[in-house]
Amino acid sequence: MPIIRVEMLEGRSLEQKRELAAALTRELSRICLCNSDSVTVVIDDVAKTNWASGGVLQADKLPSKN
Amino acid sequence: MPIIRVEMLEGRSLEQKRELAAALTRELSRICLCNSDSVTVVIDDVAKTNWASGGVLQADKLPSKN
Amino acid sequence: MPIIRVEMLEGRSLEQKRELAAALTRELSRICLCNSDSVTVVIDDVAKTNWASGGVLQADKLPSKN
Amino acid sequence: MPIIRVEMLEGRSLEQKRELAAALTRELSRICLCNSDSVTVVIDDVAKTNWASGGVLQADKLPSKN
Amino acid sequence: MPIIRVEMLEGRSLEQKRELAAALTRELSRICLCNSDSVTVVIDDVAKTNWASGGVLQADKLPSKN
Amino acid sequence: MPIIRVEMLEGRSLEQKRELAAALTRELSRICLCNSDSVTVVIDDVAKTNWASGGVLQADKLPSKN
Repeated sequence: MPIIRVEMLEGRSLEQKRELAAALTRELSRICLCNSDSVTVVIDDVAKTNWASGGVLQADKLPSKN
Repeated sequence: MPIIRVEMLEGRSLEQKRELAAALTRELSRICLCNSDSVTVVIDDVAKTNWASGGVLQADKLPSKN
Repeated sequence: MPIIRVEMLEGRSLEQKRELAAALTRELSRICLCNSDSVTVVIDDVAKTNWASGGVLQADKLPSKN
Repeated sequence: MPIIRVEMLEGRSLEQKRELAAALTRELSRICLCNSDSVTVVIDDVAKTNWASGGVLQADKLPSKN
Repeated sequence: MPIIRVEMLEGRSLEQKRELAAALTRELSRICLCNSDSVTVVIDDVAKTNWASGGVLQADKLPSKN
Repeated sequence: MPIIRVEMLEGRSLEQKRELAAALTRELSRICLCNSDSVTVVIDDVAKTNWASGGVLQADKLPSKN
């Protein structure tokens, strides 16, 4: 029943999302002792024009790996 | 003033969203005794590549109706 | 599988939450043609000190019905 | 470390988002006495077909300024 | 109509929340040219046991200013 | 920079939250190739009176393990 929501910059591949959903679900169900079938994962891809840290949009920063 | 946020797989029609906004607003204002004008509904369409249950992306599942 | 999240001022009774969960689930599954068992509702009770409209906290407003 | 999330109708320019991220970060760090580098801002552009107030989708309303 | 949601560690005073709601609303309405009456601010106080950065709960860190 | 938000029924121990924050951060940074220091985890403990599946509040259900 738990819900995991991941917000991150857009650009991850389908393979990364697939692996992420599997890994986060596995860890949560293992640690919290719940059925993995009951876990929902929702990924929110955020554009660089819509994410800022330190008051500066990612779109205005030099390339970074995060 | 209440806010209702609906996350669901993308693909619903404008007519379904229109009916959904009206129905959820009506029910909430009726049950919680608040003015329907004060209710906000935000719908979040989620791609099948961004939603997983049981650790498996919807994009990787056989067709389902939900 | 859809998720409905309701944010509203704290103070609703258990009976109101019960009726709300049932009604929102019924309407969503009816309109979007999904199984009602797959619908999750999460209610977020917000304190009057944590909700503002028009830049003014609810805690600082005269009593209102919403 | 605080996270500010802004949901609004799509259509704001990059310049408005840039100014918004800077201003919200500055105000939050000033008032809450935290380092501005630790503040994250995420903007969620919502389509007019996905936002309703008073039970009516924005897409179905006459043009408004909000 | 825009919604601003602020998640931060619990412990801010009512006065800080009051000033924060006013300032964020003022900046958003100024920059995005919308009526300040239409802006909603919701603050989410998060316990130190429920917030982690770098994989470590705030409750397990030495005192910090954020 | 990614943000992971976990919503689940209240009742998890501090030790479970500690392990969860560490594990989710480790998996996300490994899979998405980002610095673990940049990952934020926020846990939202939801009361059984505020969570429903299938239109029925958890508070009204027979004890279950999720």
